[in-house]
Amino acid sequence: MTSPRVTVLAGGVGGARLAHGFALAGVPLDVVVNVGDDTELHGLWISPDLDTVLYTLAGLNDEERGWGLRGESYATLAQLAVLGEDTWFTLGDKDLATHVARTARLRAGLPLSAVTAQLAASLGVTARLLPVTDDPVATVLDTPSGRLAFQEYFVRRHHADAVLGITYEGIDAARPAPGVLDAVGGADVLVLAPSNPFLSLLPVLGVAGVRDAVERTSARRVAVSPIVGGQAIKGPAAQILETLGHDVSALGVARLYTGLVDVMVIDDADAALAPAIEDLGFDVVVTDTVMGGPDGRERLARELLAV
Amino acid sequence: MTSPRVTVLAGGVGGARLAHGFALAGVPLDVVVNVGDDTELHGLWISPDLDTVLYTLAGLNDEERGWGLRGESYATLAQLAVLGEDTWFTLGDKDLATHVARTARLRAGLPLSAVTAQLAASLGVTARLLPVTDDPVATVLDTPSGRLAFQEYFVRRHHADAVLGITYEGIDAARPAPGVLDAVGGADVLVLAPSNPFLSLLPVLGVAGVRDAVERTSARRVAVSPIVGGQAIKGPAAQILETLGHDVSALGVARLYTGLVDVMVIDDADAALAPAIEDLGFDVVVTDTVMGGPDGRERLARELLAV
Repeated sequence: MTSPRVTVLAGGVGGARLAHGFALAGVPLDVVVNVGDDTELHGLWISPDLDTVLYTLAGLNDEERGWGLRGESYATLAQLAVLGEDTWFTLGDKDLATHVARTARLRAGLPLSAVTAQLAASLGVTARLLPVTDDPVATVLDTPSGRLAFQEYFVRRHHADAVLGITYEGIDAARPAPGVLDAVGGADVLVLAPSNPFLSLLPVLGVAGVRDAVERTSARRVAVSPIVGGQAIKGPAAQILETLGHDVSALGVARLYTGLVDVMVIDDADAALAPAIEDLGFDVVVTDTVMGGPDGRERLARELLAV
Repeated sequence: MTSPRVTVLAGGVGGARLAHGFALAGVPLDVVVNVGDDTELHGLWISPDLDTVLYTLAGLNDEERGWGLRGESYATLAQLAVLGEDTWFTLGDKDLATHVARTARLRAGLPLSAVTAQLAASLGVTARLLPVTDDPVATVLDTPSGRLAFQEYFVRRHHADAVLGITYEGIDAARPAPGVLDAVGGADVLVLAPSNPFLSLLPVLGVAGVRDAVERTSARRVAVSPIVGGQAIKGPAAQILETLGHDVSALGVARLYTGLVDVMVIDDADAALAPAIEDLGFDVVVTDTVMGGPDGRERLARELLAV
């Protein structure tokens, strides 16, 4: 029996961990990643979600912190501060190499998808890592303090502002990167990672043709709820669901994915929500969705393959 | 008595050390620096001569090596190599901050002279550091192996190729940076540093108006020979004088500076050349021109002020 082809739609940490689980399970894997959090800092093009997935699949990520590389030093950043640069976005010395190389290659005319494939190959990643688009998309948050660029909101202001609305600038003009629609259409299992729906997955689904490909694929479509017991495992998903008027629960997430997904995977803590989610037309799997380290990731990935 | 205003025309190490001597002597100082060795690597704009002068004046330079910053680490460079970048040009982590900040500010539209002034201020340098031009000038070497870009010749191939000819690409279109002509015209003492005439000073003098300003300034004009006892203190000056058909000596250097300089300063080792240099119309000062550390620099600077 051949392994099922798996495609994961992913944001940062949650997507990276689940994708890593599939990689550890040894299945052919495509990961389509959000670029709405990309930003330019110090003249360098930074793709935080792509890098989190890249470093995690390469086994080089800092597990404790959830982002960046293990064993980092910060000599360049400290000197950038001496030179008067704004250094609220932490950039390690090794991590900087990714941004320097990516920026140089983008400026030389390569599309982000080609640069990403090069970086993944250099780090020994065999899964196919795809930015959802080679075109610029910028997630912008409306808050009581005004409109904030994504990293301004997320890193500089520690996602403390209430999110009253979200715009994905450029998304109407963005075309899917080469391979993205095929990865969605040709998968046996399509997984919406336990990433933030608003900050990670909607800007993936919003790129022309992606939502349509998800709706039409013959793959078994599975979403893992990022909300467990009314809280996000990481990040501001719970606050954003609330301020945008959604149920802060796996049920609220399921409503967002109606028509896109066949199976909702929810945590044991949320077992009581299963009937209501089934009423929306989903199959529901109740399991331990909190992945923790590599063992937990592979376990969850294998459970999803068995769905 | 007010201090004389000193302007130094400089390349890298020799210019940096003598400029440092004047700074230590406490005189008002402008340093006009070659940019013909500037290069773009990994998408970053690198100005090695400017940086050598900057780091030396800031007291942050690596004295033993002659370039770069003291106490460097190389984490980013090692990772750039992992990512498949060509890393023959050694870039320290702290040094990289200079290139990252410079490149970002240039791309944001600031001219090199303004960026240089910012960097100097951030590092506590009170001397005025001026690139000779904000326009691109590229020193290119004709060699038996073909035409080589400067850093290709100098760093990658360890200046081992015979230099058959030199072109300063872009120099005809280059305009002097703001402040350069005033620094030359308004100086009390104008110093041609013991830098390589061909690789450092001719591409300074070749920028429109600079040679003319040197010829017309009322400053006392002093050149320090970079050739001592028929050899260069550092770098390929001796080989280049030879392959281009010049005398490999302080006399050969003096001939290049005829009409530009009033006083040739030569080393004790070359005392026998003094009469021949005087015959060319120069005043000649014979002294210890090998500066070594900060004490030697300040000593030589004070001797030049007394000329």
